[in-house]
Amino acid sequence: MNRTMITLDELNALDDAGFVRALDGVFEHAPWVAAGAVHSRPFAAVTGLHAALMLVVRRKPQQEQIAFLNAHPILGGREAKAGAVTAESAKEQAGIGVVSLAGDEARTLAELNAGYLAKFGFPFIICARRHTRPSILRELRGRMENSVDQEVANNLAEIEHITRLRLVDRVTGAGMPNVFGRLSTHVLDTHAGRPAQGVKVELFECGAAGPQRLAEATTNAEGRTDQPLLANAPLRIGTYELVFHMGAYFRARGVIAAAQPFLDEVCVRFGVNEPEGHYHVPLVATPWSYSTYRGS
Amino acid sequence: MNRTMITLDELNALDDAGFVRALDGVFEHAPWVAAGAVHSRPFAAVTGLHAALMLVVRRKPQQEQIAFLNAHPILGGREAKAGAVTAESAKEQAGIGVVSLAGDEARTLAELNAGYLAKFGFPFIICARRHTRPSILRELRGRMENSVDQEVANNLAEIEHITRLRLVDRVTGAGMPNVFGRLSTHVLDTHAGRPAQGVKVELFECGAAGPQRLAEATTNAEGRTDQPLLANAPLRIGTYELVFHMGAYFRARGVIAAAQPFLDEVCVRFGVNEPEGHYHVPLVATPWSYSTYRGS
Amino acid sequence: MNRTMITLDELNALDDAGFVRALDGVFEHAPWVAAGAVHSRPFAAVTGLHAALMLVVRRKPQQEQIAFLNAHPILGGREAKAGAVTAESAKEQAGIGVVSLAGDEARTLAELNAGYLAKFGFPFIICARRHTRPSILRELRGRMENSVDQEVANNLAEIEHITRLRLVDRVTGAGMPNVFGRLSTHVLDTHAGRPAQGVKVELFECGAAGPQRLAEATTNAEGRTDQPLLANAPLRIGTYELVFHMGAYFRARGVIAAAQPFLDEVCVRFGVNEPEGHYHVPLVATPWSYSTYRGS
Amino acid sequence: MNRTMITLDELNALDDAGFVRALDGVFEHAPWVAAGAVHSRPFAAVTGLHAALMLVVRRKPQQEQIAFLNAHPILGGREAKAGAVTAESAKEQAGIGVVSLAGDEARTLAELNAGYLAKFGFPFIICARRHTRPSILRELRGRMENSVDQEVANNLAEIEHITRLRLVDRVTGAGMPNVFGRLSTHVLDTHAGRPAQGVKVELFECGAAGPQRLAEATTNAEGRTDQPLLANAPLRIGTYELVFHMGAYFRARGVIAAAQPFLDEVCVRFGVNEPEGHYHVPLVATPWSYSTYRGS
Repeated sequence: MNRTMITLDELNALDDAGFVRALDGVFEHAPWVAAGAVHSRPFAAVTGLHAALMLVVRRKPQQEQIAFLNAHPILGGREAKAGAVTAESAKEQAGIGVVSLAGDEARTLAELNAGYLAKFGFPFIICARRHTRPSILRELRGRMENSVDQEVANNLAEIEHITRLRLVDRVTGAGMPNVFGRLSTHVLDTHAGRPAQGVKVELFECGAAGPQRLAEATTNAEGRTDQPLLANAPLRIGTYELVFHMGAYFRARGVIAAAQPFLDEVCVRFGVNEPEGHYHVPLVATPWSYSTYRGS
Repeated sequence: MNRTMITLDELNALDDAGFVRALDGVFEHAPWVAAGAVHSRPFAAVTGLHAALMLVVRRKPQQEQIAFLNAHPILGGREAKAGAVTAESAKEQAGIGVVSLAGDEARTLAELNAGYLAKFGFPFIICARRHTRPSILRELRGRMENSVDQEVANNLAEIEHITRLRLVDRVTGAGMPNVFGRLSTHVLDTHAGRPAQGVKVELFECGAAGPQRLAEATTNAEGRTDQPLLANAPLRIGTYELVFHMGAYFRARGVIAAAQPFLDEVCVRFGVNEPEGHYHVPLVATPWSYSTYRGS
Repeated sequence: MNRTMITLDELNALDDAGFVRALDGVFEHAPWVAAGAVHSRPFAAVTGLHAALMLVVRRKPQQEQIAFLNAHPILGGREAKAGAVTAESAKEQAGIGVVSLAGDEARTLAELNAGYLAKFGFPFIICARRHTRPSILRELRGRMENSVDQEVANNLAEIEHITRLRLVDRVTGAGMPNVFGRLSTHVLDTHAGRPAQGVKVELFECGAAGPQRLAEATTNAEGRTDQPLLANAPLRIGTYELVFHMGAYFRARGVIAAAQPFLDEVCVRFGVNEPEGHYHVPLVATPWSYSTYRGS
Repeated sequence: MNRTMITLDELNALDDAGFVRALDGVFEHAPWVAAGAVHSRPFAAVTGLHAALMLVVRRKPQQEQIAFLNAHPILGGREAKAGAVTAESAKEQAGIGVVSLAGDEARTLAELNAGYLAKFGFPFIICARRHTRPSILRELRGRMENSVDQEVANNLAEIEHITRLRLVDRVTGAGMPNVFGRLSTHVLDTHAGRPAQGVKVELFECGAAGPQRLAEATTNAEGRTDQPLLANAPLRIGTYELVFHMGAYFRARGVIAAAQPFLDEVCVRFGVNEPEGHYHVPLVATPWSYSTYRGS
C-alpha cells in the first residue's frame, strides 16, 4: 500500500507497460482497462484520464462487463476476510467496518449479498468509502428490486466512484476530480449578539448500534471550529448528530444557573446525501431557542 | 388505594377523629399533623388546608422534625421492597421505577442514601413524582454537600410537594393547588406556509439506560396534537427528546424524494425544570431548516 | 343605512314582494335577482340563499349580464360623488377612500376606468371592501389584458363577493358565510424564555402615500394582544407593516442600554392575499435576532 | 485637499518644522499639537503617533483645552458655510449633509448648538463621519445635560475620533488604526436548501426626511454580495433598512405566483452603534418565513 504518488505528466511519459503497471489495482483484477486507454495519452487532466478508463469499460459488451463485475469481491464476504482481494479493496472495506461486522448485521449483509448474487449472477458493488453501514443495507435492499440492465449500470456507476477515489490516491496533477466533501459548523449566540466562543461540539455517526463519535472540537472567537469537522474524504451517506454543549457555554458565561436548563446538549440530527458536497450546519441559539439550517 | 375522594366541605364538617382519619397517610406515619390542624377548620381552600398542615410540621422543634423525617422510608430501600411504607409512598416510588432499579443504578442510589443517612442522621427525602432517576441522583449528590439545617429545610420542602400531591388525590373543592404541568407542541410548515398536519411526534425521557418512549401523537389540521403530550401530572424534572418525523411528512407531500433527506427525524432535546409549568415546544420547519423555542 | 337585521326564518316566511323588498340594494338596481329566487325558498342556510341569488344572475344570457354590469357605478366615478348609487355602494367605496382620492391617484384610476369601459363596454367592478388602493389599481391594470368573456366572469365573481358581504350585513341565521378575516400576532422573548409582555405593536397599511396606521396595541402577559389587530371585516388585499417596539421593551427590562440598539422598532412587512383568512404573524425575538412566519 | 499620502517613515525622518507642516490641519488651527510631539519620534506605529498627539492635548490645563475647543467651528454653523474652517472640517460636515441642512432640521440644530455654547462656553464637537443626522441631534440633546468636565472630556473624545480619521487619510505605515466598519449580508433560501442567488438587496439610511438609498446589490451564487454593502469608512451611527426583494426571487424560481405574496420586499430595520464594527445581517428565508440576526 505504500505506493508513492505519480504525477499525470509522468504517467503520460511512461512506456505502455509502465502505464498499465502504474495503474495496477485501480480497476479490480483488470489490467485490460488501463491497456485500453494507453493510446488516448497524453491526458491534460486527471478527470480526463478517469473518463478514458471508464470509457474502456463502458464500451465492452454487457457479457464482458458482467465478467468484470464478477472479478469484484463480495462486500464483507469470504474473499475479503481471506485476503483474496486487491489491497485497495481490503482497505476500503475495512474503513466502513464491514469486514469486522459481527452478529445480526453481518448475517443480514451476507443474506442480502447472496440473494443479490443469486438473482443477478454478479455481486453487489458499492463504493464503500461514500457510505455508512445503514446506507449500504438500504441500497442493497433497494437495488434488489431492479432489472439486470439497471444493476449493470448501477454497479458501473459505483465502480466509477471507487476508481475515481483510487486514482486520486495514486495520481496527482492538473484537473483533479472533486471527491472530497466537507462538514462545518458555526455557533451564534443571539442572547449576547456575538459568535459563541468555547462551545464544545461533538459529531456522531448514527448506526444500528447507536451513535459513534467521529469528531470533537471547540468553537473559536469566530464561533467556528479551527478545522472543518469532516474534510479530505467523501462524506459517507448516512445520518449524523451534531451535539452542541450550549448549557455549559451559557453557564460559564453566567447566563443560566439551573442544574437542569431548558437547553443543555443541543442535538441536531441530519442526513448526508452528497458525499462530495459542503454541508454547513450552523446553530443560532439562546438559552431558550435555537435554529439550524443547511447553510453554505 | 381505592379511596373515594372527599370534598373540602365534607372534611370541614367531620368530627375531629373523622378529619384525622380522612387524611391518614397524607403525612407519613404522622396522624399528629392532621390532629394539629383540626381547630383551624373550616378551610376555604384546599391550598389553605395544605398550608395549615405544613404549619403544624414547621412549628415543631427541629428534634421532632428530625424524628418525623426518620419515619420516612429510604428511597428505593428495604422498607419499600418489603412493603413497610404507606401505600402512597409505595405507589410514588414505583412510578419512578426506583423500587425495581437493578444493577449499577440501584447500587449507586443505595450507597448515596446510606452516605446521606450517615452524615445527617435522617433519610434523604424527595418528591419522586416530580423527578426522573437522573435528577434524583443529581439532587442526592448535590444535597450531600449541605448543612443539617439546610437539609431539614430541603426535606420539609420536598414533603410539602409530596403531601400537596397526595391531598389533590384525596380532596376536592375550592382553591385546588396547581400541581400539574403540561407539555405541548405545534408544527409549522414554512415550506408551504401552513400548519403541518399528519406529523408523527414521539416524546422520550432520556435516562441512563437510553431514551424511553412516553407518548406518541400525530398533528392535526392545526399542526397541534389533539391532547397535550403530557398533562394531569407534574412534569418530572429531567431531560426529554421530542422526535418529529419531518422526512416522512415532506415525502408524503411530494416535497422531497431522497432516501436520505437532510432532515428526517428531527430531534429536539430539552430539559424540564418546572414540574408545574407549561412547556410549549414548537417546531417551525422546512426540509432544510428548523427552529424551536420555549413558547407559551 | 339604518336597516334592522332580518333573520333567515323571517325571510323564508315573507310574501314574495316582501322578500324582494327585504333584499333591495343587495344586487345593484336589480330587484329581478331576488324575484328570481323567490320560489327556491325556504333556505336552510344564508350561504344557500346567496348561492341561489347568484344562480339567477349566472343563468342569464351574457347580453343581460352585461346590462346588469352596466347598472353598476364606476369605482370612484362621478355617480359615486353625486350620490347616484345605492347606499351600500357609496359606503363601500368610501371605506377604501376611493371617492375622496385626489391628485395623481384619482387621475390614474379615472383613466384606467375609462380605458376599461372603452375596451369592454361595461365598467370595472371590484369588491372594494376586500382591497386596498394599490391592489385595486393592480387588478385594474391586470384585468385590462383579458377577453370580454373573462371579464364578464371576473366582474360576476366580484359581485359575488360584494353581495355576500351585503347579505351578511342584512340577514342573520343558520349557515352564515365566512366573510371575515383575522390578523393576530404574538411576541416571544427568547432572551428571557417567556412571552414578551408590554410590547407596543403598531399596524400600518402601506399605500402610495406612505404607511397609514390602522391599529395599535400592547401585548399582554401571554405575549398576545387582547383583541386581534384586525377582525370582523375582510382583510383588504394589500401590503402591511407590523412594527414591534422591541428596543423599548428590552430597555425597560434592563437588557439593553444603548441609545441606538441593534433592534429598536422591528418592522415586519407582509402581504395579505386572502381577505377571509387568518393571518397570524408572530415575532420571536432577542435584542440581536428575530424571526417571523405565517403562523396559525 | 489633494494632499499626497506620506509614510510614517518619512514623517519620522522630516525636520521638526516639516513634521509640523505635514500634519497641518489634523488638529484644527493647532500646530502646537504636532510641535509638542516632535521629540517623541520616531514612531513605530500610526496608532502610536496618534496617541502621542492626543497626549499633548490631554496634558494641557483645562483652560487651554477649552481655548482649543473654541477654535473648532460650530457644526452646520456660519463659519462652515462661509468657508472659515479647515478644508478637513468642511469636507466632513458636507459628508453628513449638515451644511446644506434646511428648514426645521437646520433650525433645530442651530438652536441646540447655541444653547450648548451658551451653557458650556465652547462649541459642541462631534465626529460627523461617525454619525447620521438623527444621531447627532440625539447626542446634542443628551450631552446638554452634562457638566463642563464631562463635556470637555466628551469633546476631546470626539476630537480623538476626528483626528484619527484625518491621520488615516494622510499617513500610511505600520500599525494603522482600525477606523473602518463593514456591513455585509447573506441570503439563504431554506425553501430550496441553498444560497439565494440573484436577490436584489437595497440599503437605506433612515432619517427624519424618510429613507435615503445608500447601496444596491444582487446576491451571487454564494448568496452574498460581491462587495460589502458598506466598507472603507466608519459606519455612521444611526438606523438603517435592508430591503430584500424576496418576492421577485421566489417568483422567478416558480415557487410563488400570487400578485400579492405573503413576503415581497422583506424589510430589516436595524441600528448601527459601533462605527468600526462588522455588522453581518443575514436573511434566512422561505416564501412564508424569515429570520435575521447580528451575525459575524
